[in-house]
Amino acid sequence: MLDLPFLPFSIFLGGLGFMCVAFVSAWCQHWRGGFALDGGLQMFNWHPVLMVTGMVVLYGAAALVYRLPPAWSGPKLPWKVLHGALTLAAFSLAVLGLVAVFRFHNNHGTPNMYSLHSWLGLATVLLFSCQVGAAPAPLHPGSLLHARRPHLPSLQWLAGFSAFLLPWAPAWLRALYKPVHVFFGSTILMLSVASCVSGINEKLFFSLRNGTTDYKCLPAEAVFANTLGVLIILFGVLVLGALARPSWKRPDADSPDSCQVPAPLR
Amino acid sequence: MLDLPFLPFSIFLGGLGFMCVAFVSAWCQHWRGGFALDGGLQMFNWHPVLMVTGMVVLYGAAALVYRLPPAWSGPKLPWKVLHGALTLAAFSLAVLGLVAVFRFHNNHGTPNMYSLHSWLGLATVLLFSCQVGAAPAPLHPGSLLHARRPHLPSLQWLAGFSAFLLPWAPAWLRALYKPVHVFFGSTILMLSVASCVSGINEKLFFSLRNGTTDYKCLPAEAVFANTLGVLIILFGVLVLGALARPSWKRPDADSPDSCQVPAPLR
Repeated sequence: MLDLPFLPFSIFLGGLGFMCVAFVSAWCQHWRGGFALDGGLQMFNWHPVLMVTGMVVLYGAAALVYRLPPAWSGPKLPWKVLHGALTLAAFSLAVLGLVAVFRFHNNHGTPNMYSLHSWLGLATVLLFSCQVGAAPAPLHPGSLLHARRPHLPSLQWLAGFSAFLLPWAPAWLRALYKPVHVFFGSTILMLSVASCVSGINEKLFFSLRNGTTDYKCLPAEAVFANTLGVLIILFGVLVLGALARPSWKRPDADSPDSCQVPAPLR
Repeated sequence: MLDLPFLPFSIFLGGLGFMCVAFVSAWCQHWRGGFALDGGLQMFNWHPVLMVTGMVVLYGAAALVYRLPPAWSGPKLPWKVLHGALTLAAFSLAVLGLVAVFRFHNNHGTPNMYSLHSWLGLATVLLFSCQVGAAPAPLHPGSLLHARRPHLPSLQWLAGFSAFLLPWAPAWLRALYKPVHVFFGSTILMLSVASCVSGINEKLFFSLRNGTTDYKCLPAEAVFANTLGVLIILFGVLVLGALARPSWKRPDADSPDSCQVPAPLR
């Protein structure tokens, strides 16, 4: 493939991630009435913003931490901490995003968990929960409503932190776990992107239903939100492409030595 | 990771692919009125069946041809032919699936290409078109309506066939092209799965709108079609997992020698 240096690529990717967050925020602010915490439509608007920011942009950034050239030499610990901090932030935003949509549904008597988007989205966050802390999030969606602060996921993350960031787990376990961790990491990003695409599509069909602004007429909002979907897809594909590129991996990434001190929470 | 043998895995995956085709066919036959070629709703029903069968199941099978242990030894040509035949079949079904939806839309005065699902779906097939024959499909969606048989894509495929299956292309070009080909191959499968998920979600919101069978009430059709979506996601993730698994790659897959006789149309 082309001999592309990582730095300009990562700057471009950072800009793309910023555009994803800016687009989803602008969509909800300009066309969907802005943000509030009152359980109404303005509370729902936190859902797309938090999911895109957490499950796509921050998650993608966390996945690429070990591809940064400065992470290739010197102590690995600071990069592990950065990776752990980004995944924790991503997971916290995702949980808050779920709280927003469940509270909105419950306040309006709308059933939860009926659409394929909701099935896929919740499965993705549950998988992420296992990935972060090797323990599942609450299985009953309603229980999220009673979680005023996401303290339970933080405890799960702490368990993962103790097992993989600190040097307590046996080397053979880490070596065994690393490829599983990497595979599920990429899978979760793919599922997040698919969840976002189906969610944007669904929201536009819901919101643009009357004659003048029907989705079919492709009003400005539809073009804008469709473009957001395209940006998210592009971001996800580029992150996965960067992860797969052999020349951007740590030179010792596949050595037995490296397997004994793997990227713990990636 | 677990030392899973490829054969039982591929049998399970084959069963899963069969279930995807059976589920999408049963959904359209039992709940959506069956199939016809009259430009009506029954013609639309060919769209999900052909896209799932072509862009997911046959495409996934084609991607895994070189992972079959018998393909590891002996002449590679028969496996190249099988790979080429499966991708050609997948692409032909995808084009017919697009013809079905465009003809249905045009017959009903419904605009084409307004939803995010349609943007993503067409982009995926166009990318596949470049991947198959290194030349784009017709850019104007309406032109598909005048293609009574998909003869143009076949010509494109023939160009790809000549360049990469027959030993005419220079070795350096093949070596350069192989990682690009593999990356875009996986990307197209990911995008296909995301297109299917958003399409099933959209179709259910369209079809289940009245009080008794509303999508929100999760009638039997909704559970069935959501399950179809889950099966498609599982199939796609397992194919991508199998492709990424080092021990299932041809032993010479990454050697310079192999790069000079790469899998041409994969």
